[in-house]
Amino acid sequence: MKIAGLQTAGTPGDVEANLHELDAACRRARERGAELLVTTEMFVTGYDIGDAVLALARRDLLTPARALARRHGIGLVLGAPEQAPGGGCYNSAFLIGADGAVLGRHRKTHLFGALDRAYFTPGDRLTPPVRYGDLRIALLICYDVEFPEPVRAAALAGADLVAVPTAQMRPYEFVADHLLRVRAWENQVYLAYVNHDGEEGSLSYVGRSSLVAPSGEVLDQIRHGTGLLYADVDPEVVRKARAANPYLADRRPELYEEDRPC
Amino acid sequence: MKIAGLQTAGTPGDVEANLHELDAACRRARERGAELLVTTEMFVTGYDIGDAVLALARRDLLTPARALARRHGIGLVLGAPEQAPGGGCYNSAFLIGADGAVLGRHRKTHLFGALDRAYFTPGDRLTPPVRYGDLRIALLICYDVEFPEPVRAAALAGADLVAVPTAQMRPYEFVADHLLRVRAWENQVYLAYVNHDGEEGSLSYVGRSSLVAPSGEVLDQIRHGTGLLYADVDPEVVRKARAANPYLADRRPELYEEDRPC
Repeated sequence: MKIAGLQTAGTPGDVEANLHELDAACRRARERGAELLVTTEMFVTGYDIGDAVLALARRDLLTPARALARRHGIGLVLGAPEQAPGGGCYNSAFLIGADGAVLGRHRKTHLFGALDRAYFTPGDRLTPPVRYGDLRIALLICYDVEFPEPVRAAALAGADLVAVPTAQMRPYEFVADHLLRVRAWENQVYLAYVNHDGEEGSLSYVGRSSLVAPSGEVLDQIRHGTGLLYADVDPEVVRKARAANPYLADRRPELYEEDRPC
Repeated sequence: MKIAGLQTAGTPGDVEANLHELDAACRRARERGAELLVTTEMFVTGYDIGDAVLALARRDLLTPARALARRHGIGLVLGAPEQAPGGGCYNSAFLIGADGAVLGRHRKTHLFGALDRAYFTPGDRLTPPVRYGDLRIALLICYDVEFPEPVRAAALAGADLVAVPTAQMRPYEFVADHLLRVRAWENQVYLAYVNHDGEEGSLSYVGRSSLVAPSGEVLDQIRHGTGLLYADVDPEVVRKARAANPYLADRRPELYEEDRPC
């Protein structure tokens, strides 16, 4: 399956502008043959937009995005806030099929620093991979992927692709430049790491969105600016990578128990 | 504490020649102010030496190495075979103090491919970090470090430095070039990855021994050839790195349970 990612600064706080950009990106990606388009973290609203996120989380943001998926016939991994009990919100990502159906959802489980903690309620579980076409797709969000454990859990649960909407800022270039490739390599999964670019609120994003193969090879990357990146994702490549580097089979889980002194 | 690593092809199968090389390396490293010298995987005997390893494992390899440590007043992380019940052997690493005392031992827990499995009995536990001077040092061997779990366990148990005697061959340059830095970064530990170089039996080693800081910065590296590499290891740097990148504190272990569907 050909997939695409949309790196963009977006239009912080302006849902209509972001949906307009998504409309155009869906059209272009579909014309290039992509069957899935991965967006950035909190793409629909922007990420560092202060209290505005709480009000926007109360709007129905999914229905217009589902309509775009259906109209263009392309699946989406959509970053968007989601209202939480008690007036807060989750930092969520939704897997939407080309028919507009919501197939999966992940709520960011690892909150990053003061900004995340000020606005977001943490998710309380990792998302099981969801079948989409011939792929099993797991969702994580930004800081989640910096921990080896959630990506390992996704691979062990059979994921071929981990889609990671992100909002990665300076000075954390190391994550985009190095960590992503190692996460793919050590689990033999594809990673779609799709980042904001430019400035937003107090943040300066590092761009560097990457589609990474199970071999750790970077299949496509955009260093800076707005654009679409593409890669073919093939479960047979995952299967062969796991035969060549049998990390998953060679694990010794009995040695890793959390409550066991190391 | 200044530490050193000895990258070398060694002299496969010739214990006396390897001890002679170790003697000279201890002297040079101590003259440069190092208080610990990390050797390669199975340094004392060689790694890919066929059935000879089983006979050599029955010899007392530790006593002469302990004498060298004591004579030069330098600690050692020594790669050596260790006789196992039933006629096999472990692929082990020993932490030897500058007074010659054996302070810790790790038996390779993750066996790599047919060669490891033909000769070695796997270790049945991860090694708790051992205090040496002002450091807490954990030991892993080669393939062990390619799994995120054992390094995580060492960091959670308080390791400042993970010493990794290794025998890393083509075509796995990715591990030395990328994975090591990410293991250090994601756990905020120093890593001492000390490799063979040159050819041995069927193997072509990739060299690239590296001393890596908790920031992921490579403090010293030897690409190819025989030589010593050096770095200062400071537990205060570890502490500051864990404050700057609080991965250990931000983990969600309740989400990672092995028996829980992802």
